Amino acid sequence: MIIYVASKNAHKVLEIKQIAPEFVTLEPINTELDVEETGETFTENSIIKALDYGKEIRKPVIADDSGLSIDVLGGFPGVMSARYMEGAPYTEKMESILQLMRNYDDRHARFVCSATYFNPETNFLLSVEGYVEGTIAYEIRGDKGFGYDPIFIPNGYDKTFGELGEEVKNVISHRSRAFKKLFSLLLKIGEIKYE
Amino acid sequence: MIIYVASKNAHKVLEIKQIAPEFVTLEPINTELDVEETGETFTENSIIKALDYGKEIRKPVIADDSGLSIDVLGGFPGVMSARYMEGAPYTEKMESILQLMRNYDDRHARFVCSATYFNPETNFLLSVEGYVEGTIAYEIRGDKGFGYDPIFIPNGYDKTFGELGEEVKNVISHRSRAFKKLFSLLLKIGEIKYE
Repeated sequence: MIIYVASKNAHKVLEIKQIAPEFVTLEPINTELDVEETGETFTENSIIKALDYGKEIRKPVIADDSGLSIDVLGGFPGVMSARYMEGAPYTEKMESILQLMRNYDDRHARFVCSATYFNPETNFLLSVEGYVEGTIAYEIRGDKGFGYDPIFIPNGYDKTFGELGEEVKNVISHRSRAFKKLFSLLLKIGEIKYE
Repeated sequence: MIIYVASKNAHKVLEIKQIAPEFVTLEPINTELDVEETGETFTENSIIKALDYGKEIRKPVIADDSGLSIDVLGGFPGVMSARYMEGAPYTEKMESILQLMRNYDDRHARFVCSATYFNPETNFLLSVEGYVEGTIAYEIRGDKGFGYDPIFIPNGYDKTFGELGEEVKNVISHRSRAFKKLFSLLLKIGEIKYE
């Protein structure tokens, strides 16, 4: 069975391929469609993407939306995570966040990922969330991963995602957990089948 | 377990109660919130309602959106079904549809219902569709049910929903089929449990 990934990010397609059951073929979507992420939550955005791309290509799709949510900043950057990183080097943006948090002892944060599957032939849609709890480091550490990885220390570790790298991240990350849950439920329901 | 029904229509709440497993308690939502149904499809509208009401009350909700889709009219009235019925007696509106179709031999139509469950505590969302195929009658027949029931003849019957009444409709209707599917999948997944 072929499922299309609603993302132009080749790295993300690869990451999800490592999580998907082997009998599922994941293909990137080849379209000019640009979906506006107007949702107020990760869930709303991943559903908007799945519905819009699904309507466009009329084949089963998966989409996701994810980001970092910092407690003392009221959830910031949240759904703005990707946009906040635009227009300047990652390190500069991360320094701003560390600056914002310099007076706070409560460093608690979580990475959240909403993963959605939509089949436009039957209008079946399933959306789930995965997350990883952690804390914000006091300085940028490590150069692996991307985005906010170098300032996020997952609970149970003393290194940032930027230091831990893909091997750990692929197992405990928000995206990995969200898609594992999604595929496992799709199998249980019989929406995707061994073949 | 309590699930809230995102509808101010008491009749609809009763109808869904007859389909839900007995260990699920359905409650109408008591809120002033007015959700704009801006979707292009039944699925989009039922998801918008479930997300918005769920965010408002922060408890598990179900929502639906449904309507009639007539082949030779390009799917009309479709997502406009409820709005098209506003502002004039039902019979007048149905007569207009019969008038629109007077030159067509192809009377094929279907009632469609999208049913969505959303749990805002976990951001789990599931949406499915149920439908019943049929034909548009040549005249208004029967006074049971509501909306377009008196001009819709479900396949396998020679009477309209307006003549057949609730007993048949509760078994084969689009809404009944959508919610049966929804509850059965929620049980299978373990999102709702025997208790």
